[in-house]
Amino acid sequence: MQSHTRDALYLILGKGGILQGTDVGPRYHTDPRGPGDTRPDLVLRPNSTEEMSRVMKVLHAADQPVVVQGGMTGLVVGAVPQQGEIVISLERMNGVEAIDPAAGTITVAAGTPLQVIQEAADAADMVFPLDLGARGSCTIGGNLATNAGGNRVIRYGMTRDLTLGIEAVLADGTILNSLNGFMKNNTGYDLKQLFIGGEGTLGLITRATLRLFPKPRTQVVGFCAADSFDAVVALMRHMQSGLGADLSAFEVIWSKTYELILSEVATIKPPTPAGHAFYVLIEMMGSDPARDVEKFETCLGGALEHALIVDGVVSRSDAEVRAFWDVRDGMAQAMGKQQPAVGFDISLSVGDMKDIENVLLDRLQTTLGESRLFIGGHLADGNLHLVAKTTGDGPQPRERIQDIVYGYVGEVGGSISAEHGIGTLKRAYLAQSRSAAELALMRGLKRTLDPKNLLNPGRIFAVSPDDQDRNSKENPNDV
Amino acid sequence: MQSHTRDALYLILGKGGILQGTDVGPRYHTDPRGPGDTRPDLVLRPNSTEEMSRVMKVLHAADQPVVVQGGMTGLVVGAVPQQGEIVISLERMNGVEAIDPAAGTITVAAGTPLQVIQEAADAADMVFPLDLGARGSCTIGGNLATNAGGNRVIRYGMTRDLTLGIEAVLADGTILNSLNGFMKNNTGYDLKQLFIGGEGTLGLITRATLRLFPKPRTQVVGFCAADSFDAVVALMRHMQSGLGADLSAFEVIWSKTYELILSEVATIKPPTPAGHAFYVLIEMMGSDPARDVEKFETCLGGALEHALIVDGVVSRSDAEVRAFWDVRDGMAQAMGKQQPAVGFDISLSVGDMKDIENVLLDRLQTTLGESRLFIGGHLADGNLHLVAKTTGDGPQPRERIQDIVYGYVGEVGGSISAEHGIGTLKRAYLAQSRSAAELALMRGLKRTLDPKNLLNPGRIFAVSPDDQDRNSKENPNDV
Repeated sequence: MQSHTRDALYLILGKGGILQGTDVGPRYHTDPRGPGDTRPDLVLRPNSTEEMSRVMKVLHAADQPVVVQGGMTGLVVGAVPQQGEIVISLERMNGVEAIDPAAGTITVAAGTPLQVIQEAADAADMVFPLDLGARGSCTIGGNLATNAGGNRVIRYGMTRDLTLGIEAVLADGTILNSLNGFMKNNTGYDLKQLFIGGEGTLGLITRATLRLFPKPRTQVVGFCAADSFDAVVALMRHMQSGLGADLSAFEVIWSKTYELILSEVATIKPPTPAGHAFYVLIEMMGSDPARDVEKFETCLGGALEHALIVDGVVSRSDAEVRAFWDVRDGMAQAMGKQQPAVGFDISLSVGDMKDIENVLLDRLQTTLGESRLFIGGHLADGNLHLVAKTTGDGPQPRERIQDIVYGYVGEVGGSISAEHGIGTLKRAYLAQSRSAAELALMRGLKRTLDPKNLLNPGRIFAVSPDDQDRNSKENPNDV
Repeated sequence: MQSHTRDALYLILGKGGILQGTDVGPRYHTDPRGPGDTRPDLVLRPNSTEEMSRVMKVLHAADQPVVVQGGMTGLVVGAVPQQGEIVISLERMNGVEAIDPAAGTITVAAGTPLQVIQEAADAADMVFPLDLGARGSCTIGGNLATNAGGNRVIRYGMTRDLTLGIEAVLADGTILNSLNGFMKNNTGYDLKQLFIGGEGTLGLITRATLRLFPKPRTQVVGFCAADSFDAVVALMRHMQSGLGADLSAFEVIWSKTYELILSEVATIKPPTPAGHAFYVLIEMMGSDPARDVEKFETCLGGALEHALIVDGVVSRSDAEVRAFWDVRDGMAQAMGKQQPAVGFDISLSVGDMKDIENVLLDRLQTTLGESRLFIGGHLADGNLHLVAKTTGDGPQPRERIQDIVYGYVGEVGGSISAEHGIGTLKRAYLAQSRSAAELALMRGLKRTLDPKNLLNPGRIFAVSPDDQDRNSKENPNDV
């Protein structure tokens, strides 16, 4: 970077707004998969949209590529700096700017942690329903950029569905204020959609107006066991029909994963004993404190009568609600302990889930020898998380495991990323889920919004198709 | 059009696929606001995506602009041909192609009428919840292109929220298949968002995969009267809290509009007597046939006790459900009979709705003399429909009425189009709701996807900013 560019940045941000040299700590080049290869020269920390805009004007004139950082909790290696990039951190653009419970809206700076937003909503007797394990450290800007999903998608949708308006700074420093606060606004193109799920490649999200919902009055959770996948699917339909719009989670854990959780996470007490084929967490968020527990029990009782489940318990207290969720949340922890291993976040039809364990385990073992496969996830959303590994010594055959799993996903017309995004980690496999015409249009949009390829370059796809596979199969740890 | 272009189109579509000359009936240049000035030379009626693609390749090579037509029920003069345009009609691309109740998806051709989709879902014991008055003649392609709203947005969202995947033909004939069927799919940019609400300017939607929902088991409707706007808002919060996710409609009718409905629509019997300030239709769609009516009555009874309402009835039969909805649906009919008058479809915060009748009527009468103003709509969505007129003889001062209403909408930061779109009708006022940076990005997207400006040119905005106002204040009838 030329010195006049650096001088201009100091003029805009002041000393407190820039880190360089030894002041750049490891957190600016480390994500859940570990530290990246490149320590960035410079970390820019604007504290307003105006500063962000002026910074981008300078960087745009200097042809300087940037990588954007929120809470560094992303799972697809999208925010770790690559050679030649400087960091723009949202950490100083943090806070709830406005909350309007009557309108059901909250406006926040992009660097605000998700949990802060949840708590602000709660204090206003409302709920912001996006929820995921990283809630304490992930930021809403990252949630938006990756269109995060989480545990209550069947009832409230993904981050995209919870977003009314976005403010973003474009590659040339233009401030695009689309901070709409209305549920209905059909005045030309819905520009915010470009930035939600755009993984920071089309613009830098600086603020957002999000939807709040009336707080449900009840939360009832059931935990049960089923002996076949067909029974699990029938149970899902039964609960959907019986609980209607109050059904807020339907999470399924395959038997081997359940056993893994019980053995790997010491604090967990099994709500139902091991030994069955599937375990299901079912949650209802209702509006009738006098009757919802009974309604839930009647519904689950019907499932037992019809032999859809073989065992089941219903929460009787907030402590039990938490205890049942701890089992589900323990899945990520138990899977994480399998490192080195290869993790997946896929969408496929519920019909194609039935045989996935048998098919994949068979292919893994035939090709790679003895293997382990752990499966669980958001069944009603069509979204499963998988971890696969071989049991032999030596490094995991990462590419061959990915080829097997993504090959199967491609065969059944599934998606290689349900809720984590593409980043650099899945770039080589993007064509498995998207056509040549789609990729060409994505590149066209990138050229329109960021013709110099300065914003998170190489994330999702390489701008030139020839570069597509250059960096994409290199990450050592993938769980 | 040169003869070799015409020959090429006949070769692709055959005689049955093309109308010209006197075969072009009035329905190809007439919408709810009446016949347009221009009868098109040619109507092309492809019957497959493949044909549509070949047609667009020919037209693209010939620089021939087109206007796309579905059911011709749009309310913003977007589909009536302008000088030099030929028509592409979706009328032969019609039908349900696949339905999967287990996955909750249905895939349909873009020319399929909305009601056909609703009935197909119903036959599969599911519901496709998009619903609006034009259901029998509007097509899903038009619903998608305008991101239609309707009566159940608070529970199910707008068309955008109900759409999983889109297939579209681009301006150069490229087929873009993004027929994703998953709720969660974060594999790069969500390209379908460009076409939903794009009003046919960025691509021609040919097919869509839509979400189906489990059919609610109960439908309970209440109709009540309130004496102040504050009470209406308190009632909304009360019902939201009491019914939770089962609240599916909250529709408010201002007193003058209620009187208008009763006088203009002979078939309507008033559920509650006139004489109050506001009338509210509240709908619940629940999952518990044994208890939902009681739950609704208890909740509405609480509202009566707290003096949020002064009168109210609850449906006791499907016939009463229909009768109450007939009052709400009578609003469009009664407003339509006020022609010549000027209609509006706006979003604003619930707080700003309180004074809208007084403020606007005062401004109208001060400027234009004695005036009438009728208001009603989807309060919980922040969306109102208005009709305004002066009572004097002679033509309505359309532009001055629009300037007054849109001026107020601009003052309170509202939206000039909640659910109808922009078309050509509202083009002159688009800058009231969108910034210069937003309009510049919209034009950039248009140039990227349709560099020759062939698809629905001039709808939403003119490609050159200088042309913006050229055609936009000319439509004679606006209700």
